[in-house]
Amino acid sequence: MAFLIARASAGIALAAASAFSMAQTPPAPLSATDSDPVKLGWMQGSPPPADKQVTFQNGGQFPQIRWTLQHMREIVPSRNVWRGSGAAFELPRAERDWSGFTFTDDRGQKVGIDAYAERSYTDAIVVLHKGRVVLERYWSGMTPNTPHAVFSVTKSLTGVLASQLIAEGKLDPNAKVSSYIPELAGTAWDDATVQQTLDMTAGVKFREDYADPTSEVMQYAMSSGLVPTPPTWTGPRDTITFLKTLKKEGEHGAGFSYKTVHSEIVGWLVHRVTGKPFSQNLSERIWTRMGAENDASINIDRLGFESMGSGFNATARDLARFGEMLRNDGQVGGIFSRQQLVSKAAVDMIRAGGDREKFKAGNQAARPGYSYRNQWWILHNADGAFEASGIHGQYVHVNPKAEVVIVRLGSTPTAGNGPLHGLHMRAFQAIADTVR
Amino acid sequence: MAFLIARASAGIALAAASAFSMAQTPPAPLSATDSDPVKLGWMQGSPPPADKQVTFQNGGQFPQIRWTLQHMREIVPSRNVWRGSGAAFELPRAERDWSGFTFTDDRGQKVGIDAYAERSYTDAIVVLHKGRVVLERYWSGMTPNTPHAVFSVTKSLTGVLASQLIAEGKLDPNAKVSSYIPELAGTAWDDATVQQTLDMTAGVKFREDYADPTSEVMQYAMSSGLVPTPPTWTGPRDTITFLKTLKKEGEHGAGFSYKTVHSEIVGWLVHRVTGKPFSQNLSERIWTRMGAENDASINIDRLGFESMGSGFNATARDLARFGEMLRNDGQVGGIFSRQQLVSKAAVDMIRAGGDREKFKAGNQAARPGYSYRNQWWILHNADGAFEASGIHGQYVHVNPKAEVVIVRLGSTPTAGNGPLHGLHMRAFQAIADTVR
Repeated sequence: MAFLIARASAGIALAAASAFSMAQTPPAPLSATDSDPVKLGWMQGSPPPADKQVTFQNGGQFPQIRWTLQHMREIVPSRNVWRGSGAAFELPRAERDWSGFTFTDDRGQKVGIDAYAERSYTDAIVVLHKGRVVLERYWSGMTPNTPHAVFSVTKSLTGVLASQLIAEGKLDPNAKVSSYIPELAGTAWDDATVQQTLDMTAGVKFREDYADPTSEVMQYAMSSGLVPTPPTWTGPRDTITFLKTLKKEGEHGAGFSYKTVHSEIVGWLVHRVTGKPFSQNLSERIWTRMGAENDASINIDRLGFESMGSGFNATARDLARFGEMLRNDGQVGGIFSRQQLVSKAAVDMIRAGGDREKFKAGNQAARPGYSYRNQWWILHNADGAFEASGIHGQYVHVNPKAEVVIVRLGSTPTAGNGPLHGLHMRAFQAIADTVR
Repeated sequence: MAFLIARASAGIALAAASAFSMAQTPPAPLSATDSDPVKLGWMQGSPPPADKQVTFQNGGQFPQIRWTLQHMREIVPSRNVWRGSGAAFELPRAERDWSGFTFTDDRGQKVGIDAYAERSYTDAIVVLHKGRVVLERYWSGMTPNTPHAVFSVTKSLTGVLASQLIAEGKLDPNAKVSSYIPELAGTAWDDATVQQTLDMTAGVKFREDYADPTSEVMQYAMSSGLVPTPPTWTGPRDTITFLKTLKKEGEHGAGFSYKTVHSEIVGWLVHRVTGKPFSQNLSERIWTRMGAENDASINIDRLGFESMGSGFNATARDLARFGEMLRNDGQVGGIFSRQQLVSKAAVDMIRAGGDREKFKAGNQAARPGYSYRNQWWILHNADGAFEASGIHGQYVHVNPKAEVVIVRLGSTPTAGNGPLHGLHMRAFQAIADTVR
């Protein structure tokens, strides 16, 4: 999802005093080391000096964004995802010495963890092998207890909830979306099915181009209250009102096209079918039962609509627990404490993948051979890997064959993961191959 | 503190369509039962219907406020007060049958818990005797895990942190505030001492009249981003800038006058002296060590300044744990797990009370014989009781002699506790006398 780049673009488009301009090539951004938010001193001091303040107005711009992604609830309203009051299940540890580890990157160079982290503006890496922590590192002031924005990884959590409701027979994948949400009559989702929406093959006139400020994703972000609106803004001021303005384009089911608004619809379906918001579903079904160490949170709009396409925040370790639960077919716990949080059928639905032919319509040059299924990216590689991915470098990558789960969180200067996706995939595969 | 009534007043003053007017006597408010936020359906549905929406704009008005106080982080930005990832210390239970309990209220009538709760718009009551739960009830949709706004109870938490820093020798009560915060030179706190600020005897031109929209407390609330500003607003847009505008009035140390801005200064001192915000101090020193069940939170302004005079949110049980820790001279835990979270010297400073003669200047008709010390109200009664109190009916009441801690949280139609304070004190004393 695009909101912070959209916000950054809004900042660029709107702020006459901006050092950048859409018409010019921006200067090369600061390196990860040089843009470290601790080093730059954002929001340090009581009060922080004027040139060290990060606010709703400037928080989406680089390099401020490197601070913002660890402090979302300080910028926008949010709702809690409670972990319960019991003790966390401690992740068993089997840490390895990674100092000699290298892999061949997408430029043909041998790099280790440090060089990979530096180039990709990494804030956290947590790797589990058979449920044990084999690698855990933090940068940029992040700690094991810092919730980090995960952007479109949110979609995949929403997709798990929806998949579970399908497995429980409470949500019919072949029903029309408007049969659950009648107020979507006349919109793009009037005659789109639940499955088409889950797989992002429903046709909707909506462009998600993070580098184009005229793209509808900007209107979405402004409507949702996630980015500042210009004084001239006359559009919607809440997510649902915006969603209801969107019209059909093309044929439903024809081809994949990545659009965050589908995920908001999926989340809305979860809320409508269960009578509970995402935050409560996720807490009751998963966060209170998987041994999470920290509450998570989700950004909300002015009317309390949860940003189920992009607004989740959690720690790297808890995201690893979530990934590990999926790797174990929806189960958590040891021999004597095993619990099924999500049914195997729901996980299997995701892992089966989507239509790889239809995926080709989606212009995902960085993801050749993939498909998209129930809000997850399926790699269709030899290891059966599937992953959640969010802008600015967020990943929850599950490699079933290697029994590995990799969480890596970052804060890249630009939103799209395309330029670095190949690097990440090489890193993830090399890590999996090292520990398998 | 006044922000929600200030907000309500702002709504009244600004909204031409308002049903009320400052010039007229407002109609009698709905009863507690009739204004129950669950019954009224605030924010129910996906999306909530237009007449059931609670937003930043209307959230301070009654009866919406009854919903708002359980959902502050959904309305304003906030910062987390982490409880840690260990198991909560369960509160031992010794519940009693309160169905036959009555006390004589301030109107001379015998009332029980239900009638008391109804008349005072109660959301939660938790009573500990010798650390055991003897009474725990919730109304208005509140649960044991719902954080509730506590308004000026916040001051007393800030006061405990400041008292502890004094006990540690890190904060000199006799030093001038401006010796720690030089940027307060020229303001009311230039030559006020830390102790005068803690005891609210420093002289500052600032009126805290929750019913008067021209009162400076309104400017404070608008500057802090806690209430909407009118389009014509040209004042400060952050707390610190507002605090720096305030001038001396009268003589420091002459008499008590309750002003929330002093508490913000105390909190600022805590931040300056420790280099850590209130949220981090409270988490590290207390919330992670007292067995809290839930994270707490504090509202922040646009620049991240924590609302240390009014913006804390916590569950009733965790507030009871906090009160119980103070009742035990700063200790928590059993024989084998005892920990000193706050020094006895710090608690003693508070319990010693302030100057009762100077207190008389404060126009606290509902609190005869009290004093105010280090941000706590001292009753100077036979039981040695002391308490924290916040508008709309928030109390953490510690009765050392009866070995009782009472937390009661509410959401009254108007802000000031004066009209119901006598009722609360009769209730608290009767409860203590029943279990002692």
